[in-house]
Amino acid sequence: MALVNEHYLKLAAGYLFPEIARRVTAFVNERPELAPEVIRCGIGDVTEPLPRASIRAMHAATDELATRESFRGYGPGTGYDSVRAAIAHGDFRSRGLDVADDEIFLSDGSKGDCGNILEILGAGNKIAVTDPVYPAYVDANVMFGNTGAAIAGGGYEGILYLPCTEANGFLPELPSAREPAPDIIYLCSPNNPTGTLMSRARLEEWVNYALRHRSIIFWDAAYEAYNRDPGAPVSIFEIAGARACAVEFRSFSKSGGFTGVRCGYTVLPKSLQAYTRAGDAVALHPMWTRRWNTRSNGVSYAVQRGAEALYTPEGRAEVRALVDFYMENARLLREGCSRLGWKTWGGEHAPYVWCKVPDGSGSWAFFDRMLREARVVTTPGAGFGRCGEGYFRISAFNSRANVEEVVRRIARLA
Amino acid sequence: MALVNEHYLKLAAGYLFPEIARRVTAFVNERPELAPEVIRCGIGDVTEPLPRASIRAMHAATDELATRESFRGYGPGTGYDSVRAAIAHGDFRSRGLDVADDEIFLSDGSKGDCGNILEILGAGNKIAVTDPVYPAYVDANVMFGNTGAAIAGGGYEGILYLPCTEANGFLPELPSAREPAPDIIYLCSPNNPTGTLMSRARLEEWVNYALRHRSIIFWDAAYEAYNRDPGAPVSIFEIAGARACAVEFRSFSKSGGFTGVRCGYTVLPKSLQAYTRAGDAVALHPMWTRRWNTRSNGVSYAVQRGAEALYTPEGRAEVRALVDFYMENARLLREGCSRLGWKTWGGEHAPYVWCKVPDGSGSWAFFDRMLREARVVTTPGAGFGRCGEGYFRISAFNSRANVEEVVRRIARLA
Repeated sequence: MALVNEHYLKLAAGYLFPEIARRVTAFVNERPELAPEVIRCGIGDVTEPLPRASIRAMHAATDELATRESFRGYGPGTGYDSVRAAIAHGDFRSRGLDVADDEIFLSDGSKGDCGNILEILGAGNKIAVTDPVYPAYVDANVMFGNTGAAIAGGGYEGILYLPCTEANGFLPELPSAREPAPDIIYLCSPNNPTGTLMSRARLEEWVNYALRHRSIIFWDAAYEAYNRDPGAPVSIFEIAGARACAVEFRSFSKSGGFTGVRCGYTVLPKSLQAYTRAGDAVALHPMWTRRWNTRSNGVSYAVQRGAEALYTPEGRAEVRALVDFYMENARLLREGCSRLGWKTWGGEHAPYVWCKVPDGSGSWAFFDRMLREARVVTTPGAGFGRCGEGYFRISAFNSRANVEEVVRRIARLA
Repeated sequence: MALVNEHYLKLAAGYLFPEIARRVTAFVNERPELAPEVIRCGIGDVTEPLPRASIRAMHAATDELATRESFRGYGPGTGYDSVRAAIAHGDFRSRGLDVADDEIFLSDGSKGDCGNILEILGAGNKIAVTDPVYPAYVDANVMFGNTGAAIAGGGYEGILYLPCTEANGFLPELPSAREPAPDIIYLCSPNNPTGTLMSRARLEEWVNYALRHRSIIFWDAAYEAYNRDPGAPVSIFEIAGARACAVEFRSFSKSGGFTGVRCGYTVLPKSLQAYTRAGDAVALHPMWTRRWNTRSNGVSYAVQRGAEALYTPEGRAEVRALVDFYMENARLLREGCSRLGWKTWGGEHAPYVWCKVPDGSGSWAFFDRMLREARVVTTPGAGFGRCGEGYFRISAFNSRANVEEVVRRIARLA
């Protein structure tokens, strides 16, 4: 008798974004004449064309596959050497950070990586996440059996939630010394959903905490391109000691606009270890390599070339321009909300504006009001966790015209 | 203290193909003047250009990403509807098989799928594989904790190995009624590595066995395009009852030459169930859907369009021509070996020729001899399991000139 993974049965309701899609579809079916007016600032999906450097590289790579002489079959499971080298140099060594080419593991995106990484870690690890949090971290951990049952009102037993609130500026603080230390800690900066940045001093505290407790930090830097604050680390490997306690996740989705192209990477240092139950240290780098070679044949060839092209001078300039564009959107949205007296966070070094519900209603109630009265799709803060109740997220990934229209419509709403 | 996945520590030696690569590199470093002569018939990697229909579709899709109007960001986690429909119609409904569009789950390849599928199944399932077997099935199960320790001489405790030998024509027989029934059974036809085909009668026995024991069959049809024997099922869904006990894996790697492009799919029927420990039936289709939506953002857009194009009339004709080409290679290799009196299987409805070591030596010894004396890379049968000892696999994925040269060289070797 084939047994099912019973951990899946703990999963509460739907994943956040399908639920949003369901409500939008219901509204549009009910008021089809308003469908063309709906502006989607919910899911953080890019809208602008790919950098021309990537387009050209992808065409060239596709042409290579069209003739026997230049054809490429199976590539390395962890990515082509030249692509790994471009990344390690471009994102790390050129900034004085010690990351080797073979510490870069290419993937089809961060969403996969932040779940897949759990495969090389054992059962019984205590997981810490911020609240609010990107839901894919939590759901992946539920599926892997790293949590208990769902709690009425949100969250799962067994997970340590690090509250992020107005009081702490939506930045996670170290757990109290009284509670058992988490073994795995997910941190995200610039943060999704709150758009906040973790300061160097705070991240140093976390790295030291992890070193002291032999914990591992999963540093999600998917939005690093939006961080232009010299006081906030882009990479966790800027912090002394991080090579012994951290994995970094990066994505080309929000820098190069690769949400449909699918490419990201992890940095897993050779010096990172985890432990057997008997307390023996085991290096994770060979395990992660083995994982990739056994479970995958790597990323699509043309996609790898498209990612590599982001590191050329032209590619860099185009990424900069793309990020500038979305940053200006974020500024318009942030200032538009502020002008109405709405309280906001983020949107300065992040493509998300985190906003307090202005009418005192709940997250989903205000989501519905924004949808029905302003025809603007946002993301209700409660969808990211209990501490997100009473807030909502606006995504700056949209056309300038739409962003300006959103600012006009919310002004009429207020 | 972060705990490691200790199951990884059971993994014996390297994955087969890296070990072959290591030996080839060692030989080439030792005799660099012979490097240009080495012909690789080891790993089953295609050599011919992609179908022009796919190339065109991938260029067009890349161009869509180059303008704001036609840009596509996140796609559905399980694949675009039109691609799923093309597959469900082209591979199943047009052949009279009952498969719905949303029973098709697009992925970046079969190697991932045949491991990922284990995520929705529980701990404690007893796994059956053939011996010899494609090593990725076994290694994925070791990593998931579905096996015991490695056994000296090959294999893992806790796995039920179904011996495939000359005596049974390299086709797995049902386990004896005396042993506990396996819960999950991997079957592959046309078989990798032996090139043999499972007959309809034998597959019916297996489906009935699975239904009787509430087991699940993982039907790996990655090489189905090579099966032109009307007496051997292409899809397991040709067999009555299979929709209640089977998942099918398909790949575009060996049909459309997608080994570097990366695309495949699973068919998971809505009627397929597994069980809780308490014995309650749970449908797997919603779980597999949830798995994809939580853990992935789907396959690269241009890749999906490239796969879809294989279902156009032009794409079909090109796939047929590609498969014909490799089939002719297989015929030349099979007949070349036979002329020397070497005993062979497969190579008729499969791109692999399975051959008995002619000189009475072992698999790896003969691998080394073929490499050193004929400069031909094969795959030692022992790499696929204990029952593979004394055999080797030759891949027909190569240029015609290389295949003809291999035939000449082995004639001199004999």
